[in-house]
Amino acid sequence: MSAFEDAKARWAKIADLAAALSVLHWDQATYLPRRAFAARGRQLAALTETLHAHRTDPALGQLMERCGRELHGVDSESDEARMLCVAQRDFERARRVPAEFAARLAAHQSVGYVGWARAREADDFASIVPVLERTLEFSREYASFHPGFSHVADPLIDHADPGMTVARIEPLFAELRAFLVPLLRRIAERPKPDRSMLQDAFDAGAQIAFARRIVESMGYDFERGRMDLTPHPFMVRLAGDDVRITTRIGEDDLSDSLFSAIHEAGHALYELGIAPHFDRSPLGAGVSAGVHESQSRLWENLVCRSRPFWEHHLPQLQRSFPQLRRVDAESFYRAINCVEPSLIRTESDEVTYNLHVIIRFELELQMLTGELAVRDLAEAWNERYRSDLGIEPKGDSDGVLQDVHWYSDLIGGQFQCYALGNILSAQLFAAANAARSEIAEELAAGQFGSLRGWLLDNVHRYGRKLEADTLIERATGAPLRLDAYRAYLQRKFCDLYALDVGSPASTDATSVARTDLGSAFQ
Amino acid sequence: MSAFEDAKARWAKIADLAAALSVLHWDQATYLPRRAFAARGRQLAALTETLHAHRTDPALGQLMERCGRELHGVDSESDEARMLCVAQRDFERARRVPAEFAARLAAHQSVGYVGWARAREADDFASIVPVLERTLEFSREYASFHPGFSHVADPLIDHADPGMTVARIEPLFAELRAFLVPLLRRIAERPKPDRSMLQDAFDAGAQIAFARRIVESMGYDFERGRMDLTPHPFMVRLAGDDVRITTRIGEDDLSDSLFSAIHEAGHALYELGIAPHFDRSPLGAGVSAGVHESQSRLWENLVCRSRPFWEHHLPQLQRSFPQLRRVDAESFYRAINCVEPSLIRTESDEVTYNLHVIIRFELELQMLTGELAVRDLAEAWNERYRSDLGIEPKGDSDGVLQDVHWYSDLIGGQFQCYALGNILSAQLFAAANAARSEIAEELAAGQFGSLRGWLLDNVHRYGRKLEADTLIERATGAPLRLDAYRAYLQRKFCDLYALDVGSPASTDATSVARTDLGSAFQ
Repeated sequence: MSAFEDAKARWAKIADLAAALSVLHWDQATYLPRRAFAARGRQLAALTETLHAHRTDPALGQLMERCGRELHGVDSESDEARMLCVAQRDFERARRVPAEFAARLAAHQSVGYVGWARAREADDFASIVPVLERTLEFSREYASFHPGFSHVADPLIDHADPGMTVARIEPLFAELRAFLVPLLRRIAERPKPDRSMLQDAFDAGAQIAFARRIVESMGYDFERGRMDLTPHPFMVRLAGDDVRITTRIGEDDLSDSLFSAIHEAGHALYELGIAPHFDRSPLGAGVSAGVHESQSRLWENLVCRSRPFWEHHLPQLQRSFPQLRRVDAESFYRAINCVEPSLIRTESDEVTYNLHVIIRFELELQMLTGELAVRDLAEAWNERYRSDLGIEPKGDSDGVLQDVHWYSDLIGGQFQCYALGNILSAQLFAAANAARSEIAEELAAGQFGSLRGWLLDNVHRYGRKLEADTLIERATGAPLRLDAYRAYLQRKFCDLYALDVGSPASTDATSVARTDLGSAFQ
Repeated sequence: MSAFEDAKARWAKIADLAAALSVLHWDQATYLPRRAFAARGRQLAALTETLHAHRTDPALGQLMERCGRELHGVDSESDEARMLCVAQRDFERARRVPAEFAARLAAHQSVGYVGWARAREADDFASIVPVLERTLEFSREYASFHPGFSHVADPLIDHADPGMTVARIEPLFAELRAFLVPLLRRIAERPKPDRSMLQDAFDAGAQIAFARRIVESMGYDFERGRMDLTPHPFMVRLAGDDVRITTRIGEDDLSDSLFSAIHEAGHALYELGIAPHFDRSPLGAGVSAGVHESQSRLWENLVCRSRPFWEHHLPQLQRSFPQLRRVDAESFYRAINCVEPSLIRTESDEVTYNLHVIIRFELELQMLTGELAVRDLAEAWNERYRSDLGIEPKGDSDGVLQDVHWYSDLIGGQFQCYALGNILSAQLFAAANAARSEIAEELAAGQFGSLRGWLLDNVHRYGRKLEADTLIERATGAPLRLDAYRAYLQRKFCDLYALDVGSPASTDATSVARTDLGSAFQ
């Protein structure tokens, strides 16, 4: 099969150059000197252009056509057939984007990133508006390269979550919202748990050391990765044996850094678990942003915000932070699961989190369709927080500038994955527990082997071999659906807030006007 | 001048891709996870191959020919003419090296680096012999691409120090040796200063903080660079505004980390001082390894191992390390300038340092000509240390495995720059002091502005615009020669060891047999 071997060598080279590009991104987000951002932008642009040329080389297209003939009759579910199929889709998608566009975009994104960091520090959205207006133009231009979609956001969504569309997401989010809003309203009427123990002076070094121990116990391998500090935590695969996580430290808040490290380690376990023979092939990556997010959220919420987890781990935490020595596990569990509308998505609780996501998703659509001008974005953002969550950002850095996505990437397709991931995290966790009854017992003993094993066997090892929809269907016996997530949230939060589980939690979506919520939390 | 503008854009892209490659190297030497070295090797190979293709693109060659016609009649010392001249030389040199060789070499170097790190840890030269034998083959193959030199090492030397040859270096090193050996012999007869204050427990964090303060006061700009830890310190230019240094910490030795940080900062000031409009052009780099080393050694030795420097800075050091509070400046100055044959080049004193270099230079030549087999290198190394310095490595990690050069690069041209740099450091420092009389006074007050300004005006800003020989001649009024360096060492060490300056220090080279030295230091 010589054409296929040639194609594999080309895919491997593309993967290696893409990894080099990711090293530059990682460095930019962790260690780049303050005045080096402009230079880094040019370097990223040069490498992006080169990578794009390799990805869209007509010779690669011809080679893959020959591969298609070579593989004629081969099982369409074989590794080879799937590699070729995924590679051809990538090729087609890349080919539609002109090289000069890719280079211009890379340079723009680097400017955007540094502009965002400055604007955020200065709490000044207005300063970044011209950059973001260009980003919106880039986003529409990107969409225009992929005709045949029914909504301008669809190509952008498809890029992150292949197979997803506005038409699939909007009803799902409506259903989600219809269930969350009444739950949130009922919780708001109950007494709030005490969170004060989490807001104290916590030594940064001790926080890092504790986070390292936890992610290591989850199975994250520091010989195949590392953990560094960054303003906006992320995970990046630089190779099958080099999957790095990042976190940030709030010296007056324990939960932010801990749960962000766990979250990123959840992503990393996915990448580290992909079958080694998929490394440097088109299959050597997570299948979609939503499935990726299901892995981070599963570990962050279903495992590490659970009661058994802290019954086991609180004593270790107390050894690192003696000021917590009088706290009992139940109080700690209640504190880290306190539901309260807040301004920052990444710090928000499990019930309100999806509302943050839905706001962003809808604002993205409005900008792309032209209903909302970029210059009005901060005001629209604040208005949505007032109406949907009943609170208002103090400034832009707590509001529209909090997430890096729009400022370092495109507008569109950036946020749906977070809610999809939440939904999937519960669906997968339920399937894992149904398949392996020992998981619950192990979790209570601070052990994660069976859970990790099930995830490895049913999700991680496949990489991009199975499409996301197929993966979910095979792993859980059902397509993506809300049931498990709704049941999980209901069970957990009705218990925490002493609510009657049986009471109506799925109000018709249309009956929940946005303004309904405002008063509940003021 | 459209061909020239086109060429500039191509040079800029080459510079950007080369910078990306350097980011991968920097990351490999500082933060790469233990099990990621094989993957990094493949990434370096892929990017090297891509870079090589850009550097040797026949279209670039044709474009530069058109530039030559465009620039006909333009002053040959103009920026444009020099850019083209240097770029054409680079092109010709790169074109001679086949792309597949460059890729194979990059992959091999990465294997070599990780093999070296392991062999050094295990103190086991034998384990790396097969790798080093391949390196020697690579080195000879590299030399064979550049016919017309009179010695097999010449193309390798020329790559680092353009214009230098074995024929120029051998007599210079003989003269150097002839002067150092009697000086060393006389020093050996004198009482040794007390060095014990430098060997104590010094907090790593305090060492890093102090080193940061010193390099910052030298003028190193942390907004345009950073300092990280690595086993083998180096400086790397990632962009005109991103020039990074590295250091290592010995918790039981104060001088190693401090002087290595200063050394690398000396290199960095050179790169940071290159005229900004040379950035991303063929002129945007230091002109030769020897001139580069002159900058690091000037700051390390002539400035920071001087009496006035410590008269000013010792109180600051004492605030960082209270155990030094009873030490006076004169004793400290004597301690950091203690002359004593030792095993590690980078920790050796100014008098013996060049002997370390000469050993390596000669062993390189012997390997390249086939006089010495790689498998016999450790023994030959140890034999030379016995005969030349009167001491013997305890193991390979103190001996032949101490320097990374041969294991991560080629054999040949790796070490002459260190002795050339020493010689030039004194020649340049003397010229600077002659030109600006305020330098000495400023140094005594802990100020470096006038010295840095002279270096900027006479060395740094030129980048590769002037050839090394021209640069030296214009900056110092004379070609490279030993006089200033000999005078400097004589003045400094005759004072330190209470020797008569007038006594014969330049014995005829041939009269100093290698074995003469052995007895003097046993």
